[in-house]
Amino acid sequence: MLDANRLFPAESSARKVAVKLYETVRDLPIISPHGHTDPSWFAENKPFPNPAALLIQPDHYIFRMLYSQSVSLESLGVPQVDGKQQADPREVWQIFAKHYYLFRGTPTRLWLDFTLENQFGLKDRLTEANANEYYDVIAKKLETPEFLPRALFEEFKIEVLATTDAAFDDLSWHKKIRESGWKGRVVPTFRPDAVVDAEFIGFKENIQKLGEVAGEDVSTFKGYLNALRKRRAFFKEMGATATDHGHLTAMTADLPAGEAAKLYERIYSGKTNPGDVELFQAQMLTEMAGMSVEDGLTMQLHPGSVRNHNKLVYEKFGRDKGADIPSPTEYVRALRPLLDKYGNAPGFTFILFTLDETVFSRELAPLAGHYPCLRLGPPWWFHDSPEGMMRFRETATETAGFYNTVGFNDDTRAFLSIPSRHDVARRIDSAFLARLVTEHRLDEDEAFELIQDLTVGLVKKAYKL
Amino acid sequence: MLDANRLFPAESSARKVAVKLYETVRDLPIISPHGHTDPSWFAENKPFPNPAALLIQPDHYIFRMLYSQSVSLESLGVPQVDGKQQADPREVWQIFAKHYYLFRGTPTRLWLDFTLENQFGLKDRLTEANANEYYDVIAKKLETPEFLPRALFEEFKIEVLATTDAAFDDLSWHKKIRESGWKGRVVPTFRPDAVVDAEFIGFKENIQKLGEVAGEDVSTFKGYLNALRKRRAFFKEMGATATDHGHLTAMTADLPAGEAAKLYERIYSGKTNPGDVELFQAQMLTEMAGMSVEDGLTMQLHPGSVRNHNKLVYEKFGRDKGADIPSPTEYVRALRPLLDKYGNAPGFTFILFTLDETVFSRELAPLAGHYPCLRLGPPWWFHDSPEGMMRFRETATETAGFYNTVGFNDDTRAFLSIPSRHDVARRIDSAFLARLVTEHRLDEDEAFELIQDLTVGLVKKAYKL
Amino acid sequence: MLDANRLFPAESSARKVAVKLYETVRDLPIISPHGHTDPSWFAENKPFPNPAALLIQPDHYIFRMLYSQSVSLESLGVPQVDGKQQADPREVWQIFAKHYYLFRGTPTRLWLDFTLENQFGLKDRLTEANANEYYDVIAKKLETPEFLPRALFEEFKIEVLATTDAAFDDLSWHKKIRESGWKGRVVPTFRPDAVVDAEFIGFKENIQKLGEVAGEDVSTFKGYLNALRKRRAFFKEMGATATDHGHLTAMTADLPAGEAAKLYERIYSGKTNPGDVELFQAQMLTEMAGMSVEDGLTMQLHPGSVRNHNKLVYEKFGRDKGADIPSPTEYVRALRPLLDKYGNAPGFTFILFTLDETVFSRELAPLAGHYPCLRLGPPWWFHDSPEGMMRFRETATETAGFYNTVGFNDDTRAFLSIPSRHDVARRIDSAFLARLVTEHRLDEDEAFELIQDLTVGLVKKAYKL
Repeated sequence: MLDANRLFPAESSARKVAVKLYETVRDLPIISPHGHTDPSWFAENKPFPNPAALLIQPDHYIFRMLYSQSVSLESLGVPQVDGKQQADPREVWQIFAKHYYLFRGTPTRLWLDFTLENQFGLKDRLTEANANEYYDVIAKKLETPEFLPRALFEEFKIEVLATTDAAFDDLSWHKKIRESGWKGRVVPTFRPDAVVDAEFIGFKENIQKLGEVAGEDVSTFKGYLNALRKRRAFFKEMGATATDHGHLTAMTADLPAGEAAKLYERIYSGKTNPGDVELFQAQMLTEMAGMSVEDGLTMQLHPGSVRNHNKLVYEKFGRDKGADIPSPTEYVRALRPLLDKYGNAPGFTFILFTLDETVFSRELAPLAGHYPCLRLGPPWWFHDSPEGMMRFRETATETAGFYNTVGFNDDTRAFLSIPSRHDVARRIDSAFLARLVTEHRLDEDEAFELIQDLTVGLVKKAYKL
Repeated sequence: MLDANRLFPAESSARKVAVKLYETVRDLPIISPHGHTDPSWFAENKPFPNPAALLIQPDHYIFRMLYSQSVSLESLGVPQVDGKQQADPREVWQIFAKHYYLFRGTPTRLWLDFTLENQFGLKDRLTEANANEYYDVIAKKLETPEFLPRALFEEFKIEVLATTDAAFDDLSWHKKIRESGWKGRVVPTFRPDAVVDAEFIGFKENIQKLGEVAGEDVSTFKGYLNALRKRRAFFKEMGATATDHGHLTAMTADLPAGEAAKLYERIYSGKTNPGDVELFQAQMLTEMAGMSVEDGLTMQLHPGSVRNHNKLVYEKFGRDKGADIPSPTEYVRALRPLLDKYGNAPGFTFILFTLDETVFSRELAPLAGHYPCLRLGPPWWFHDSPEGMMRFRETATETAGFYNTVGFNDDTRAFLSIPSRHDVARRIDSAFLARLVTEHRLDEDEAFELIQDLTVGLVKKAYKL
Repeated sequence: MLDANRLFPAESSARKVAVKLYETVRDLPIISPHGHTDPSWFAENKPFPNPAALLIQPDHYIFRMLYSQSVSLESLGVPQVDGKQQADPREVWQIFAKHYYLFRGTPTRLWLDFTLENQFGLKDRLTEANANEYYDVIAKKLETPEFLPRALFEEFKIEVLATTDAAFDDLSWHKKIRESGWKGRVVPTFRPDAVVDAEFIGFKENIQKLGEVAGEDVSTFKGYLNALRKRRAFFKEMGATATDHGHLTAMTADLPAGEAAKLYERIYSGKTNPGDVELFQAQMLTEMAGMSVEDGLTMQLHPGSVRNHNKLVYEKFGRDKGADIPSPTEYVRALRPLLDKYGNAPGFTFILFTLDETVFSRELAPLAGHYPCLRLGPPWWFHDSPEGMMRFRETATETAGFYNTVGFNDDTRAFLSIPSRHDVARRIDSAFLARLVTEHRLDEDEAFELIQDLTVGLVKKAYKL
C-alpha cells in the first residue's frame, strides 16, 4: 500500500535528491512539542479500547468528512452531550470502511494507510470487504503489551511529547508519569484560554479554581495575574517549556495598568461593556508575553477559528466535533501593541500559527523576517497536509527564511497517527528542498544540513527542549 | 494547432497516467448543468449569424481583453444601449485576428483554437493574414444544416443543457422545444435575482410580472412567497432541477416572520431604510433554501461580483460588458443564519461558488467538508482556466475531498465553446489525478474511478440530472 | 557557485525550452524604470566605500533577516537617527558571513551569489572562513576605475535607469549628470508623497519648499495644484517619464472642486477632521491621474505597506529599516472614483503594484484585463523573488494576459544587485513560458516573441522610454 517514494516529486532528478535527504531523517526520534494526547494514557498505561474508539470516534477529521456526506454522528458513535453513545464499534468500523473512498486525496487517507500498514501490518487498502477482518486484527493487537501506550510511545521513538493542559489543572497525571519511573518524556503545556476568555463555558468557576489552586485572591487583577504567574511556575517545574493561546483573533492590547485592572473587574463581575471580552483577551496576550519574557516559557498563538459553527451539532455533541471553521485573520495591526512592548525583548520566543494561508506571504513571513521574538509555526489543522505544507514553504521561505520556522507540530489527539504525520512532514520538506537543489537555488550540502534542522534542530531550539 | 497532450504535465510518468485517464472520459457526453445559452436557439433552430456575432460580440472574455488594449467596443460592434451597432462583421473579425496575440496564455485562446480546429477544421493559428479566409470558411459553414443549433447540440454530445431564466419567464421557448418532438434535453434554471434584488433594473415591474404569471397578490410577503413557490413548481414541471442566485455578498439572514414581512413591505413600497436592500436579499436566500428543502431543487449561490464597474461602458453598452470585477467575499459568518436553519436538512443540496480563490482552503473546503448540504461549485468565471482549476483541486481537495465537489460547469453563453471548455476541465482533472498517482497519494484504480465521477457522476448527483 | 541552469525547471523538456528562451534575452540591455539608486553616484562618479557600506548597510533585506535572528543593528553599523554608526566595516562583513546560512532559500542569497561571482569573481560560497579574504578582494576592486559608478552602469549594460525624487527636489544631481557629457541615461521620477501625505515627517515645510521651488502660493489649493503641475513639467524636462505614489491604501476620491479646496485648507492649516488625511491622499491620486492625462507621465501606485512597524527600531534608526509590513489591500472599490473619471482616458497609463498577492487573480488581473489605462506592475518587494514572480504569472496571466503587464522593476537602492535581479526575472519568465510551451498552451515561436516583450518591449512602452 505504501510506496517508498510517496509524496516525492515525479521528476526523477528531484526525486533522487528527495530520497537521499529523507533517508537521513526518516528514523530520527520524534519531537512533538504541541499536541492533544491524554496524559492519563501514559500514567495508567492501560490498553486502548476498540478500533472505533481509538481511530474514529476521537478524530474530527474523519467524522466531519463522513458527516458531510450524510453519515450521522449517532451512527458513528460520536459521544453526545447527554452521555449517550450507542453505536456498536464494529458497525462503526464498517461504516467507515464503506466510505473510505471519501478520503481520497486527503491527509487522513495518508495517515490511516500508514497506520494500518506500519502499526498493524495490514497491507491492502481498507474496503468494505476486508473491514471485518481488519477490525479483528486491530482489536487483537490492542490487547497485546506491544500496543500499550508506553510501548507505542517507545516504538514510535518519541523523544518528547507535550500535552495541552488548563491553567488550573493539577497535572496529577503528569505527576504520576514522573513518579512511575518510566523514562518517557511527557510534558505539559500551559493553556489559559478557559480563564482568559470570558465566554468560555464555566469561565466564572474556572477563575475560582485558578484562585484556589494558586492560593490567590482572584477578585483583583493583581491576584489574578499572580495566580497565573504561580501556575506557570508550577507548569515549568513539571517540565513545561511553552504556553499556548487559542483566540478568535490575533488582537492584542496594552492598556495602562489602571484601565486593565478596571477591565478585569468588569470581566470578573460579569458586568461587561460591549467589546470587553475581546479587549480582555487582547490585553491578556500582552500580559502573557510579559510573563514569558520573565519566565522564559515559549509562547504560542493559535487564532482564527470560528468555533462550533453548526448549532445543531454543537447542541447535541458539544465542542470539537469538526464544525470549527477558519476565518480571515489579520496580524499586522492586531499584534502591534504586544510587539511594541515585547517585540525586541531578548530571549522571548513567540510562535504564530494561522488558518488563513494568505497571511504567510503578506503578513507572517514579513513579521517573522524582522522581529527577533517571532517564529512561524508549521501549517496548522486543515493545512497540515502535503499541499498545505508545500504552500507554506513556498510562500514563507523567501521572506522569513527557514530559520524563523520551528519544525513540525502534529497537534493531534489521535496518538496512532503521530508517526505518520511526522513522516509526511519529513517527506514534504525533503521534496521542497530537493526542488531547490535541482533548480540550483540551494547547494546539496546545505539541503542535508537543513533537513536535519527542519526535523529536529529548529523545534528543539524554539521550544527549548 | 492542437497537440494531443496539451494541458498534461511535461514530466513523462505523470503525462502517461494523465493520457490514460483522459482517454476514458474524452468522449463521454457533456452534462451542462449551469449556463447562459439562449433556449430560443434550440426552439427555432435557425442558423447562427456571422462569425463576429457568434464568436466575438457575445463573449465578454474577448471584448474585455481587446478593450483593455484600447480597441473600442464600437469598432467591435458590441451592441449599445441605444440600439446602435454599426461595425461590419468582417472588419470586427479582422480586428480580432490582428489582436489575437493578446490572448496568449489565456483560456480564451485555448477555447478558440479548439473551436477553430475541431468545429471548423481550421488548423493554423488565426492571424491577420488568414483572417479573411477563416471568416469565409466559418460563415459558409454556419449556413449548413450541420451547424444549426440542434445539430451542433447533438454533435457536441450534450446529454443535458441547463439555461438560466428569470422567475417570471413564461418558459415559452422551453415549451416549444418540448413540443417540437426534438429529443435534446434543454432545461430551465430558476433565477429570481430580478425579483429579489431591489436595485435590479425594473425591480418594481418585475415583481408585478411575477404576481401576474403566478396569479398571486405580491403586495404582501405571503403572496410574494407563494408566487415564488408556484413559479418554482412550474419550472420543475418544465424540467428544472436547480435554482441559481447571484448576489453581491453571501450574506444570509433568518428574521422572525413578522420582521421579514415588514421588511418586504418597505422593499415593495420602495420606502427602504439603509441596509434593507441587502438584508432582504439575505433573508430571501434563507427563504429559498427553505423552498429547496421542500421541493428538492438544488440551490446555487454565485456571490462576490461588483457589477458594472466602468460607468462609461455601463452607460453606453449596458450590463455584462466585461466590467464586472470580483471582490473579497466572506462565507463563514455570512452563511451562518441559513446553515443554522437548514444546514443539516436531509436531501438539501446547496452549491457554493466564489470569485475569491482565497476562500477555498480557508472557508469553503472546511464548510463543505462538514455540512451535509454543502457542495463546492467548480472554479467560476475568471478562474475557469487551467491554472484556476488546478488551484481549486490543490486548495480544496485535502479538506473537502473530491466527493463534496460537483464536476464542471461551462457557465457560458458562447455555445460553440462548450466542448472546448469541458475538454479543458477533463484534461486538468486528469492532470491533477495523474500527479496524485505518480506521487503515490492515490492508487491508479481509484484515479480511473474518480475521473468518471468528476466528469459525469458528481454533476448528475448534485444537480439531480 | 552559479549553475547555468539555475531557476529553470528540473524536468528536461521544459528546461531545454527555458534555456533557449533565456539565451535570447540574457545579454539584452537593462531597462530599469523604477528604483532607488542615488543620482549623486553618477553625478560625482566617486568610488563606492567599503564592502559593508556598499552591500550590507543600505540593504534592508539583509539586515532585517539578521535582526530577526537577534543580530543587533548596532553591530551591523546601520546608521542611527542621532548620527552614530560605530561598527567596523570588516567586522560587519564577518558577522554577515557567519550568518549567511540564514539566507538559504531567499532571493537575497541568489542576488549576493550572483554579485560575488559575476562582479567580483568570487566563486565559492561565502563562509566565515573566507570572509576576510573576500572583504579584501571586494575592497580592492572598489578602488579601481572599473568599479566607479559610471563604469559599472556601462558594464551592467543599463540602457536607462530611473531614480525616485521628491516633488520639491531641484534635481541638481540629474542636472550635473546631463551637463557632464556622460552618455548614461539616468532619469528622475516624480514622487510627491512628502507633499501629499499630511503625516509625512516635515509635511508643512515640504509644502513650503514646494511653493518656493515652483514659485506658487501654496496656501490655496489652486496654487498647490499649480505648483505640482509646474514641478511635473520640470521633471519631464529633466527626462522623467513617470510619477510614483506610495500610499497606505489604494483609496481614491473625486470630490467636487469646492469641497476639495476646503479639505486642502484644513490640511494646510493643520486643523484636520478625522479621516481628512486619508481623504486628501485619495483626492490627490485622482488629481494626479488628471495631470497624467494632461502631461502624459505614466502613473505608478504602490499601496499597502504599514510603515515603521517596530517602534523601537524606528525611534533609534528611522525609516526604511526593514520594519515595513504589508497589509490587506483592496482595489476594486478604492480605485472606483479615479477610474470613473479617468479609467477610459486615451493615452493614460496607470501601473498598479501590490504587496497583497491575493488580489492578483481576484482584483488586479480582472481590472487590468478591462480598463485601457491599467497595467500590472511586476511582483513588488517581498514578492520580487522566484516563487513570487512565478505566482504572479500563474495568477495574473489567464485574466490580464501578458500585454497588460510591464516587464520588470528592480526597485532597489542596492546598485550592485541590479544585474542579478534582472537575471532572476528573465530566468523565471523563461521558465514560465517554457512550461506553457511544453504543456502546449503556447507555441514556441510565440514564446520567443513574448520573452523579448517581457524583457524589453513592454517596459519601454509602459514607461514611454
